Amino acid sequence: MSDIKEQIAHHRSIRKYQSKPVPDDVLHQILEAGCRASNTGNMQVYSMVVTKDEALRQQLWEVHFRQNMVLQAPVLITFCADINRFNKWCRVRNAEPAYNNLLWFCNATIDATLASQNVALCAESFGLGICYLGTTTYNAARIIDILKLPEGVVPVTTLVVGYPDEQPPLTGRLPLEAVVHNETYHDYANEDIDRLYAGLEATEQTRELLEINQKETLAQVFTDKRYTKKDNEAASAAYLEAMKRQGF
Amino acid sequence: MSDIKEQIAHHRSIRKYQSKPVPDDVLHQILEAGCRASNTGNMQVYSMVVTKDEALRQQLWEVHFRQNMVLQAPVLITFCADINRFNKWCRVRNAEPAYNNLLWFCNATIDATLASQNVALCAESFGLGICYLGTTTYNAARIIDILKLPEGVVPVTTLVVGYPDEQPPLTGRLPLEAVVHNETYHDYANEDIDRLYAGLEATEQTRELLEINQKETLAQVFTDKRYTKKDNEAASAAYLEAMKRQGF
Repeated sequence: MSDIKEQIAHHRSIRKYQSKPVPDDVLHQILEAGCRASNTGNMQVYSMVVTKDEALRQQLWEVHFRQNMVLQAPVLITFCADINRFNKWCRVRNAEPAYNNLLWFCNATIDATLASQNVALCAESFGLGICYLGTTTYNAARIIDILKLPEGVVPVTTLVVGYPDEQPPLTGRLPLEAVVHNETYHDYANEDIDRLYAGLEATEQTRELLEINQKETLAQVFTDKRYTKKDNEAASAAYLEAMKRQGF
Repeated sequence: MSDIKEQIAHHRSIRKYQSKPVPDDVLHQILEAGCRASNTGNMQVYSMVVTKDEALRQQLWEVHFRQNMVLQAPVLITFCADINRFNKWCRVRNAEPAYNNLLWFCNATIDATLASQNVALCAESFGLGICYLGTTTYNAARIIDILKLPEGVVPVTTLVVGYPDEQPPLTGRLPLEAVVHNETYHDYANEDIDRLYAGLEATEQTRELLEINQKETLAQVFTDKRYTKKDNEAASAAYLEAMKRQGF
């Protein structure tokens, strides 16, 4: 097993952090790792906004559903889809850019996400902990305001970075055959679903969740509690609005 | 410098491959690495379609702008945003999913992309080469047909995987200060753009590109040749159409 495979196999999201700051040279190295990721046409249509200031992190904490780790950890990195820099370059070089559309929003989202995973893995290799904040897409408009993102720039995901103050157990995953398809996609029969989700459904954690949430099935915890139709639709409309406001 | 930082620093996309197959246990390990990536709510809303069959790769080669590496390399992995499996699970568990919207398309795109970068880095750690195919979003509808992707599944990106038959030089990147913002976003003045792009514009490769393409500036090579307004708009409309066809 390679070192990287080993590290990846032991990845866990860290939600409790020491107050110890991240040394500048370490931060510099992990950001550099982000830049080395593959990206669309080597156009690097992304940006990384590194926020350490406490007042700003307080504002971002509000936006990220008041998760305490946002205040605890010394560094937040917001990864953004960014065609603004590329557009500006084009315009001062007598070229007319036309990237303000859905396709380039998706390309830029992929670029930003590839950079983020390089940063995450490099950070872990230096003994840091990380956690991705999926809340980034939920309150994009407020993040745009707090981080002063101009037209052409939309937040995609955020990494919390700092020294871990916990060592949580590994989170389970579906068996590999659930997410891998050989040659072409093979759709799931009900028996496949039963088999593939059996492990997840049989855990102690699932039993606790059913009790706390007073639900019959784990799937209902997702659809009725965590990610409801109403919330999904509102957040989706808001994200589309944010994309449009930023010119996509 | 950590091993991971070291490997990331030396990443280059490989576009020429040996015909040597990827051993099954190595492939298994790199796919497993994909599954360990962070993902939205541990819902794993992505799939990886592994294509080795030559007739299928021939069809995908057509779709990926006939890039020879698609035929040369023994393995193609198409990473897809996938809410189909999750939806099916919900429906057989008496839960009503509502994830067929833009927000969840974006969440699923991020999940698929994080998994892809784990696969890419793990593959490289085993001596394999990789190349991302940005063409995945350009011809999504045809990929959907070839790989038989059902409703709820959209291709996001593709990795070519195999043993390298070349050792290309490192590709340059913009200086770190071009993509990193401290605390909040700092927009670029024209002088910033001049300074940040000076290195890229001064390379021998740029000089050659200007000559081949008969253009005044490198930016024009992008806007007038590689990614034109006409192509961008057509591909963007087609990708939106593919998303809608798949139920998003």
